[in-house]
Amino acid sequence: MDVAAYFAERGALVDRHLAALVPPRGEAAAPRTLQAAMRHLLLPGGKRLRPVLAMAASEAVGGTPEAALPVAAAVELVHTYSLIHDDLPCIDDDTERRGGPTVHVAFDEALAVLAGDALLALAFEVLSSGASGSAAPETERVLATVGELAAAAGATALVGGQVDDLALESCAGPGDELAEQVESIHRRKSAALLTAAITGGARLGGAGETELEVLRRFGGDVGVAFQIADDLLDQGNEDGCSLVRVFGPERARARAEVLLDGALGLIEAWGDRAEPLRECARSAVRRSR
Amino acid sequence: MDVAAYFAERGALVDRHLAALVPPRGEAAAPRTLQAAMRHLLLPGGKRLRPVLAMAASEAVGGTPEAALPVAAAVELVHTYSLIHDDLPCIDDDTERRGGPTVHVAFDEALAVLAGDALLALAFEVLSSGASGSAAPETERVLATVGELAAAAGATALVGGQVDDLALESCAGPGDELAEQVESIHRRKSAALLTAAITGGARLGGAGETELEVLRRFGGDVGVAFQIADDLLDQGNEDGCSLVRVFGPERARARAEVLLDGALGLIEAWGDRAEPLRECARSAVRRSR
Repeated sequence: MDVAAYFAERGALVDRHLAALVPPRGEAAAPRTLQAAMRHLLLPGGKRLRPVLAMAASEAVGGTPEAALPVAAAVELVHTYSLIHDDLPCIDDDTERRGGPTVHVAFDEALAVLAGDALLALAFEVLSSGASGSAAPETERVLATVGELAAAAGATALVGGQVDDLALESCAGPGDELAEQVESIHRRKSAALLTAAITGGARLGGAGETELEVLRRFGGDVGVAFQIADDLLDQGNEDGCSLVRVFGPERARARAEVLLDGALGLIEAWGDRAEPLRECARSAVRRSR
Repeated sequence: MDVAAYFAERGALVDRHLAALVPPRGEAAAPRTLQAAMRHLLLPGGKRLRPVLAMAASEAVGGTPEAALPVAAAVELVHTYSLIHDDLPCIDDDTERRGGPTVHVAFDEALAVLAGDALLALAFEVLSSGASGSAAPETERVLATVGELAAAAGATALVGGQVDDLALESCAGPGDELAEQVESIHRRKSAALLTAAITGGARLGGAGETELEVLRRFGGDVGVAFQIADDLLDQGNEDGCSLVRVFGPERARARAEVLLDGALGLIEAWGDRAEPLRECARSAVRRSR
């Protein structure tokens, strides 16, 4: 399959969906500067990896890409909020992202904090309104997805990983112990949200508990492999520690391949309908930018 | 009724519930410093006005106080996150709250941003796991409550009100126009979350759409009246503009009474079971600290 075309088509679907959601609709309009700060990194945004994986995961269990849209959009909103807060002067202090100024540079720090907050809240608003109609099984699936996304965004996953990342004093130390620590940070800071995209998309596409359990392991391993790939492309510009710095590029690349192979093996028997999910995972881990 | 005893008893219920929720449980534990930063303002916390209103609203429509606990806890988590972020140097730059240091003073700015983020995510995790069993009507009610809480926390309400509050350049101006602007800020920044507590508690207590519509108006007016009462107690220490500064204390107090009377009139015919809700509203607006 043509994975670039798949990404372009599915990415355009989520772009249109996100553009319609921000500014959020409500009785009161959101202040204009806040709307602009919320849109700054969201539209046109990045490569939409997590939303596309959500749609591919829905297809992998026999659902439609459209069924995954609420969680695809919600995960991208959470991802964008986390980038804005991570860039803040008190955290990574980054002034540039994707070739432009970060939100606190383009606006100010208060707006960067508040736009991030608003995007995080919007993720749950978008997801909860994604239950079309009141069919009970669908409502239950959406509610379970809310819980899983909230956990992935929270203190035991995304935020906790970030806190431990900031607390790592050095990227040198007894090799295996440090490697375990850093991989645990990657699992929480990066892989948890990517996993929530995959399991959320699959759940909204009708997955059963057995499939979800497989996809949780799949997402965790693909997520760490993706983070290694990202750090390989980013060498010299990293914030903090990474498996690339701990292992060196060659061993890190090998670790990413092992994780990817293991993940692909988990869904080897899922047939043709899982091919987009496999291809998206391969392309995320093996991309050269 | 003895409203102080009611507050103490219901407040203790929510205290126990919150203490069991933070640290959040998950496969990975949350980092210890993050747990401590999350608990700093949450436990023992404030007067638990919003959770107690949620429980009283459940009782007002014939539900139990316990039915409202998931939303009572979630709203208090959102309230606490918003205090932590509002106190940040780039927003209100407050170093003290409730007689102790604010989170960014007791820990650091990064942890204050991240603890706030984690509390906001935890609110939705707690709420979504509040559906005991999978009875369809209950699941639907919880999901609707997720959406309403997310909207109350978002760009058209809490965050938007905060952005407009920061953008208000001065607390002087043509009286009526400024008063309308400031009341609109109070409605979004304070009253929206208080309303979400009331409607959420009532919904989990089994309220119908007609009751919820009444409680939306009730909560909006009580919320603004409560904000005026809060600002009356805080004179000299305010951040930003308030109806107390625009109107002067006497006229502001009169406005709070008008709003409270109107709100109480809306639920006048609801009988004895709504008495705790009426008493909590009266006590919130008329308290002398």
